[in-house]
Amino acid sequence: MKIGLLGCGTVGSGVYEIISNGKNKKFLKDLEVVKILVKDQSEVTMDIMTTNPADVLENDEIDLIVEVMGGINPAFKFISKALSSGKHVVTANKAVVAKHLKDFNKLAEENNAILLYEASVGGGIPIIKSLKQAMRIDDVTKLDGILNGTTNFILYNMYENNYEFDNILRLAQSKGYAEADPSADIDGIDIKNKINILSSIAYESIVPLEDIYSFGIRNISKHDIDYFKKQNLTLKMLANSVKEDGKYCASVQPVLYTQSELTGSVTSNFNIAGLAGETIGDLKFYGQGAGKFPTANAVVQDIIDVATGSHASYPSDFNKSIEFDGTLLTGKYYARIHSEDKDMVQKVENIFKDVIEEEIHFREYYIINTKEIDQNQFKKLAEAALEVDEKFFMARYN
Amino acid sequence: MKIGLLGCGTVGSGVYEIISNGKNKKFLKDLEVVKILVKDQSEVTMDIMTTNPADVLENDEIDLIVEVMGGINPAFKFISKALSSGKHVVTANKAVVAKHLKDFNKLAEENNAILLYEASVGGGIPIIKSLKQAMRIDDVTKLDGILNGTTNFILYNMYENNYEFDNILRLAQSKGYAEADPSADIDGIDIKNKINILSSIAYESIVPLEDIYSFGIRNISKHDIDYFKKQNLTLKMLANSVKEDGKYCASVQPVLYTQSELTGSVTSNFNIAGLAGETIGDLKFYGQGAGKFPTANAVVQDIIDVATGSHASYPSDFNKSIEFDGTLLTGKYYARIHSEDKDMVQKVENIFKDVIEEEIHFREYYIINTKEIDQNQFKKLAEAALEVDEKFFMARYN
Repeated sequence: MKIGLLGCGTVGSGVYEIISNGKNKKFLKDLEVVKILVKDQSEVTMDIMTTNPADVLENDEIDLIVEVMGGINPAFKFISKALSSGKHVVTANKAVVAKHLKDFNKLAEENNAILLYEASVGGGIPIIKSLKQAMRIDDVTKLDGILNGTTNFILYNMYENNYEFDNILRLAQSKGYAEADPSADIDGIDIKNKINILSSIAYESIVPLEDIYSFGIRNISKHDIDYFKKQNLTLKMLANSVKEDGKYCASVQPVLYTQSELTGSVTSNFNIAGLAGETIGDLKFYGQGAGKFPTANAVVQDIIDVATGSHASYPSDFNKSIEFDGTLLTGKYYARIHSEDKDMVQKVENIFKDVIEEEIHFREYYIINTKEIDQNQFKKLAEAALEVDEKFFMARYN
Repeated sequence: MKIGLLGCGTVGSGVYEIISNGKNKKFLKDLEVVKILVKDQSEVTMDIMTTNPADVLENDEIDLIVEVMGGINPAFKFISKALSSGKHVVTANKAVVAKHLKDFNKLAEENNAILLYEASVGGGIPIIKSLKQAMRIDDVTKLDGILNGTTNFILYNMYENNYEFDNILRLAQSKGYAEADPSADIDGIDIKNKINILSSIAYESIVPLEDIYSFGIRNISKHDIDYFKKQNLTLKMLANSVKEDGKYCASVQPVLYTQSELTGSVTSNFNIAGLAGETIGDLKFYGQGAGKFPTANAVVQDIIDVATGSHASYPSDFNKSIEFDGTLLTGKYYARIHSEDKDMVQKVENIFKDVIEEEIHFREYYIINTKEIDQNQFKKLAEAALEVDEKFFMARYN
């Protein structure tokens, strides 16, 4: 099978290396990268590299396009063009898949092309294929996971090594875990894309991205972590999704675990992704959620599934209808006001007045432990409190 | 696809129910159980049930045989017969697979039949397929896991709920987790079968069962657990296997973890199974390692793989040669003498004299913390100490 790569950064070069080094491997030896699109002439270091997209997209020799450029544009245009001309597409790009899965799916069906995107969620963890496999037998009604290595790396190091948020974020950036603009990670946008993709697959329905509200860790401080430690709790950035009677709910927010819980024990930049079904019960998958070779591995696994035809052994329908229902996920929350300013505290207390279970004064912080609230309430309360206190922070007690 | 069931106990009835209830599922609707072998006439409750093996094994209508009787005989005979006549076989029986994989594999090849056994390791956890998938790209050089729910249930409840070993074993038996003869579980024989199967697949070589020494938890006491708690350690029954330069080593023994380690956080009767490869890094899979529906789910997943032909998209060779090398797995150990009898203590001390790092007197116990030793030394020391003190116990520090 002849492959064209769109992009040759970290993941792209990993894909090229895995395939090139696989000449003695039964499932790799017949794969060949014949063309690679790079950004500009200075990056052209091999004969097969080009700066002209048409050399890849309009190349009749190529059966399958790997898109590893990231971002919405021109990825959307290139993937659409590849599918339209009947080329199979494998992508690691969660942003473009979450936003355009419906369009891509339609194009793939119309042109008898296959679209796979295992690497877009959980990096090297085979969560998408395992989810599809579970769905061959069960209705999958629950998904959850730590789906972003950067935020787990930040929270883990704040907890274990007493880092301040700003310092560990800078370290994550210097290690290449976090982008220069860290918003996609720390505001939960990356995770939102991923739980959106998993939910769409599991519920066989393209779930609108706008349904999901994400609350990130931008406002977490060392004092929050100290308080959690005192309670023997550890903080993880979680995605959750559930389905019940044709309705679903998804959330992206920090969650507090005891350290003896499995999800609470996921260290450093590792990910964990879970699903539940009636006969299989709870399944969880742990591994490297990012990085050159784990992500490239997932891309190449998809290529092998296309090449061997085994993609056809898994469901891939999105024809059910489903509605968002914010009341399906509930929990008690930690809500923290970043001030001793009486006026500000009173304003936030007033926002929370119907759901306050307990109030604590810890160092310069006011902490409200809430009664059980649902996701509609969570969003409303969080947004209102952030208007008053831009450093306001919330986390769910698991 | 027409299916014959050999056995209709817990797992067999689960397989029947999943298939019968799947008429609206794309990948289940064309499966049909047409004959079921049961032990005696009193168990015949449906027309399709029979007590005559030939009604299933010599039934030309049947494409695939599911063996869920357990034990070596007559399972070995029945599976051999089915493969010999070109029928595909799916089994959940780790004992017969570990013992006869070589014979089965030969028969399957000669008769163009497919043999799959996902449910034999890790119950509902798709560890075998995930391992084979990883092998499409990587050499898998490391395997580990909590592969027995009964021992994890026992150790977890001794730790969390202060049970004595005998009491929690009886509770496990009453819940149906442990057999009347619990040896296969508590002496690690079941785990040995499972790590043998995983090692054989990963190293593409039928690994002899005799190579693997298992040290169980029969001798664990509340005092051991109390001592581990004081050190903030939790005990798990572990299987490990590694490959290096054409040699391999596997071990089955209790291992001490801190509670914040992922494997140390596996509660109740859950299992976790891990693998490592060069590009994928560490992957771990967590779920129900036993039970009616999780195990039946794994059996049905295998049936679907046969029915859709996707089994062919995974490696299944056993043609490499590999040698056992006990020095490849090393560790420091907790060795505990169950006595204050000076003579007995001295005898065991003498056995350990070259590897003692520290000695501790705890309640009525003498504890030796060893220097780093390998699996050859471990086996020799453990066997010699058990000759002196039949309640002697050892565990590795992770």
